[in-house]
Amino acid sequence: PEASSGTPGALPPVKWQMTTSWPNSLDTLQGSALYVAERVAALSGGRFTIEVFAAGELVPGLQVLDAVQSGTVQCGHSPTYYYVGKNSALAFGTALPFGLNAQQQNAWLYHGGGIEAMNDILASFNTIAFPAGNTGTQMGGWFKREIKTVADLQGLKMRIPGLGGQVLSRLGVNPQILPGGEVFLALERGAIDAAEWVGPYDDEKLGLHKAAPFYYAPGWWEPGATLHLMINLDAWNQLPPPYQAMVQTAAAEANQNCLSLYDTRNPEALQRLLAQGTQLRSFSPEILAACQKEAFALYGEMAAENPQFQAIFDPWQKFRETIYQWHGVAELGFSSFVMQSPV
Amino acid sequence: PEASSGTPGALPPVKWQMTTSWPNSLDTLQGSALYVAERVAALSGGRFTIEVFAAGELVPGLQVLDAVQSGTVQCGHSPTYYYVGKNSALAFGTALPFGLNAQQQNAWLYHGGGIEAMNDILASFNTIAFPAGNTGTQMGGWFKREIKTVADLQGLKMRIPGLGGQVLSRLGVNPQILPGGEVFLALERGAIDAAEWVGPYDDEKLGLHKAAPFYYAPGWWEPGATLHLMINLDAWNQLPPPYQAMVQTAAAEANQNCLSLYDTRNPEALQRLLAQGTQLRSFSPEILAACQKEAFALYGEMAAENPQFQAIFDPWQKFRETIYQWHGVAELGFSSFVMQSPV
Repeated sequence: PEASSGTPGALPPVKWQMTTSWPNSLDTLQGSALYVAERVAALSGGRFTIEVFAAGELVPGLQVLDAVQSGTVQCGHSPTYYYVGKNSALAFGTALPFGLNAQQQNAWLYHGGGIEAMNDILASFNTIAFPAGNTGTQMGGWFKREIKTVADLQGLKMRIPGLGGQVLSRLGVNPQILPGGEVFLALERGAIDAAEWVGPYDDEKLGLHKAAPFYYAPGWWEPGATLHLMINLDAWNQLPPPYQAMVQTAAAEANQNCLSLYDTRNPEALQRLLAQGTQLRSFSPEILAACQKEAFALYGEMAAENPQFQAIFDPWQKFRETIYQWHGVAELGFSSFVMQSPV
Repeated sequence: PEASSGTPGALPPVKWQMTTSWPNSLDTLQGSALYVAERVAALSGGRFTIEVFAAGELVPGLQVLDAVQSGTVQCGHSPTYYYVGKNSALAFGTALPFGLNAQQQNAWLYHGGGIEAMNDILASFNTIAFPAGNTGTQMGGWFKREIKTVADLQGLKMRIPGLGGQVLSRLGVNPQILPGGEVFLALERGAIDAAEWVGPYDDEKLGLHKAAPFYYAPGWWEPGATLHLMINLDAWNQLPPPYQAMVQTAAAEANQNCLSLYDTRNPEALQRLLAQGTQLRSFSPEILAACQKEAFALYGEMAAENPQFQAIFDPWQKFRETIYQWHGVAELGFSSFVMQSPV
């Protein structure tokens, strides 16, 4: 330690590395990782610095948790549901189909036991994590032809990973997993019939509006997807308490900032897409009801297979019901009037 | 300065005082002020402390900005719209009737120029402010009798301050201004016919459900009310940059935390109220449309009177339209399905 580290009020210099699941081109998601690093540097007067690496620069984008667990890096930025293969209960940290929107997800994470529930599981991966970004409700993706009934889903080849893909496969969809860089060509050439990504601002960058005309809402599989800052537990435990507070507070600020950034950029991107001929469509109530039914059937199966999933699912489902009841009164009552009643 | 203040990485001890607009009993609102102080202490390792005083302990609850401006205290926690008498444009910082919900208000504040617009005005009061709390969409209040048409508003004596009261007075309501502690008795004894406060969790504390049976939604005059941390500019400018970052980041974290806290406590409080016989009602589309029309007529008059109001209103109205368009697609499409389609 340098000479000043024993002085009251002086904290030691610390240098960390962070790896993420994002390319630099996604300034919303990668931007949230960079935001954490910038705030920690500002809070510490430059004594605690975090160098941020995009997916693939140090570690592949889907192996962030592995790299954090092993200590290859001290921290990472990634959604917990990328790691459901290790433990299916990690889905709750990010999003469940027909689950919580961003505001509800934050309530569950910060005051409904969500952060603690995820960290109970992540401790067995030598990791602690805090929410550090949210996309808001995503879009339902781009379709070459209109989807009007559940029967229209039969045999549809759609790029959709994760639990959303599992739910749709129960209704006859053939889910495809493709990295972002390959989605446009597959859709444009007809190798797939449909593809979901995030929402207007991010989708526009992939050019998906040039490959399919129908843009469906909502992305019921990601109604408020959270990204997490994941931290190696040994590195975390070695931090002086003020540095722990800086990391935690910067992550919380990034969590809010990411959603506000999406909410500012998506409206403008949507207007550009519509001006170029994109046609908005909504999934029919029949399709949504069928998908919701299959989603909860799937959760029942997952709970039966994994007691840790069951232990989180039961109170989560109760939380979901009571917050839906409240938000159905004031939030929905206000939003459904004003968004459908222009001045 | 103490001996260590010149050491690299060591920051000087700083003690501030904060006065708020809230009683200690409101653990949501006063809790947000305390949260800022707790986080700044944690971030600084206890070297930067803020002592928090409830309304009336040092300064009356409606004079927070005055106390901050004069330097009586270094900072305060209060909504900017309490000070519309000084400048009507300060309404935008908190909430406008038929304005933005919490998620939209955050987008406008953090990435739509809102923080900068408020601070341009507050600079003339020797103050800088940052968002530090949000209530979410509030309730429309407690009514002794049902309100079914615009005609039913005629002559109604209702406790409702601010712009909401001004809008309703254009439709025949007789708005009353009463402090929280007097609302229950006035409503219970029939001195007033109706009263609004915040939402289930805070209203329950005042006992309003024991004074009137009908609980109306939504509180269209406060769809996502922001509370601000207000800071004396001289005190702010004297802070070392890391301390400025701590104050700003702690305020942002408190902003998100307050909404999540309300979203956890309101659902449970609503269930308790319903179990005690409270009857939920919704303002009719006719009433909402008439109120929205009067609200925007009022904004036109305020803009004509105050160029600073006009300068913020024009881009704010454009921001409102485009974010309503986007949220009307994905957010509303998801929420309106799931909240009305139980599993």
